Amino acid sequence: MDSESHRPRQVGRGAKVRDAVHAATLAELVEKGYAALTVEGVALRAGVHKTTLYRRWADRESLVADALADLSAMDVPIPDTGSIESDLRELARSLVRMMTAPKGRALLAAMFSGAADVPGVAEARRQVFDDRFRRAEPVVARAVERGELPEGTDPSELLKALAAPVYFRLLVTGDPVDEITAERAALLALAAARAGALRRR
Amino acid sequence: MDSESHRPRQVGRGAKVRDAVHAATLAELVEKGYAALTVEGVALRAGVHKTTLYRRWADRESLVADALADLSAMDVPIPDTGSIESDLRELARSLVRMMTAPKGRALLAAMFSGAADVPGVAEARRQVFDDRFRRAEPVVARAVERGELPEGTDPSELLKALAAPVYFRLLVTGDPVDEITAERAALLALAAARAGALRRR
Repeated sequence: MDSESHRPRQVGRGAKVRDAVHAATLAELVEKGYAALTVEGVALRAGVHKTTLYRRWADRESLVADALADLSAMDVPIPDTGSIESDLRELARSLVRMMTAPKGRALLAAMFSGAADVPGVAEARRQVFDDRFRRAEPVVARAVERGELPEGTDPSELLKALAAPVYFRLLVTGDPVDEITAERAALLALAAARAGALRRR
Repeated sequence: MDSESHRPRQVGRGAKVRDAVHAATLAELVEKGYAALTVEGVALRAGVHKTTLYRRWADRESLVADALADLSAMDVPIPDTGSIESDLRELARSLVRMMTAPKGRALLAAMFSGAADVPGVAEARRQVFDDRFRRAEPVVARAVERGELPEGTDPSELLKALAAPVYFRLLVTGDPVDEITAERAALLALAAARAGALRRR
């Protein structure tokens, strides 16, 4: 009976349920970690009956993977300032802003909690990054056209060089992540690219 | 009664017990993760009575932190080839070799499993890296003396620039980590340092 009253009644309500469930999944991950995450807990927090959840998501693994994929679709602005140096600065600054904001912290917790090794989650994480790197490709293409970077510079390697120091601090050393981190990450990636250290293999 | 027979009887046996307990802690972490790690499980695997463990380690948090600190004391050879480029290559290669060998995988699992956010473990992890960066300082000092790197190059920033792409692959993208990863990491760090992007703040 109770499950009936929670069943989505209309087309359109589906998206709302999905949003609520994704938000609840991330909140549960941040608060409790993957080990303690349950479909019941997510349902309760989302205000949705658990049978509704089970109808769409087979298990907590697919819940987490799906929430991650959705979160990664967040719009990351792609800068076009006319110079690779300031484009890279912009990219590094948005990354730092994103990863230190609550939503970014949720993403980090979701991707690197006890869920990190779950195959569906690892795959979703890979897609998040592939997607992000792909969307930043025009920045590198324009810089090569302007003669600012060597021909054959690998956009994905450049983006990884930019992101790696930020994640290293967030995940490994625990050092603070701030504007200076962004500035250094941008300069580091730029220097490496100019020196030809980021060419396609 | 049983606990008596397992009590360390001699000075000297203490170190053996500690080694066995550290090894068992890491093995349990790799196999089961932090959430499922118990003092009882470690005791069983180490062949030591749990009362012996509790005498030295108050809880599983201190067990993990201590095992981590011990693992980090592994000898990492500090190269002195006469050139910063080949020194950095050597360093990157040892890092890659270490992190892809079973002991390094244990370290990674221990540091970035569900234990990652436990304060004692986070602190042990920071010490692992601080210690490692400190030991590699002479490499950078010699390069500055030889005029290969700008004055004021920060040894710790250079080491982080070298390590970051390796950890980014291991922890974030899941891309393969191999000789080419090491080569690229060394070139990237070198280019950034030469360009002055890794000077002391």
